[in-house]
Amino acid sequence: MPVAKVKYTDGMQFVGEAGSGHAIVMDGDAEVGGNNTGLRPMELLLIGVGGCSGMDVVSILKKKRENITGLEVLVNGKKADEHPKKYTDIDIEFVVKGKNLSEEAVKKAVQLSMDKYCSVKATIEGTAKVNFTYKIINE
Amino acid sequence: MPVAKVKYTDGMQFVGEAGSGHAIVMDGDAEVGGNNTGLRPMELLLIGVGGCSGMDVVSILKKKRENITGLEVLVNGKKADEHPKKYTDIDIEFVVKGKNLSEEAVKKAVQLSMDKYCSVKATIEGTAKVNFTYKIINE
Repeated sequence: MPVAKVKYTDGMQFVGEAGSGHAIVMDGDAEVGGNNTGLRPMELLLIGVGGCSGMDVVSILKKKRENITGLEVLVNGKKADEHPKKYTDIDIEFVVKGKNLSEEAVKKAVQLSMDKYCSVKATIEGTAKVNFTYKIINE
Repeated sequence: MPVAKVKYTDGMQFVGEAGSGHAIVMDGDAEVGGNNTGLRPMELLLIGVGGCSGMDVVSILKKKRENITGLEVLVNGKKADEHPKKYTDIDIEFVVKGKNLSEEAVKKAVQLSMDKYCSVKATIEGTAKVNFTYKIINE
């Protein structure tokens, strides 16, 4: 069962640790009494959906023996103006680098992640509309 | 506009960075071809909801001049068995430490975060049922 413990330190700084044994620092900006020593909690959702879908795409392309040499996942989030300022729209762009990458294979890998495998996307899309595109750079 | 860039390094390791300028390492366990060098993307949702709501509670209690000396937010997530294995239930426990803390003030702070302010909770609760409790430790 995934668990996390988030502990207050000072100002608006919190240290979060999770079942895998790793920890991160979160903080707010000066406007909310923070000192910007770490990530904003809302940024973790964008990084999480990028990491989750990125792992899917790499895993699927490797299984298909595609020669993937790099991947960047760019994520933009749009928040509601009113509290609780949840994400209403999230745009994800996959930039896949490789040698002789098949466009069909990349398209299919991205679609499988978005439609079937990405747990983070599946959790947030009850609220946020998630759009995605991909770009292939054959080196 | 909140943005994040997530970059593939090796194995299942990704480095995510966001608009605030901070970065984190994500990785999978050996079962998925990872080396457990960093947090799982799904753990970021739990840490994020703990940090987000923790900042609300600290902020509200400080505004009310309550003498809060510590806060731990414990988060448990339950995932669906089938892909995409999204969170179906998330339990949050706030353990608030302080001196002469008013139970009414703590209860109100937690409720305001959960019902009105916490952007991460508002984003994930379209999918996951979020339950919360609190405990007060007056030192």
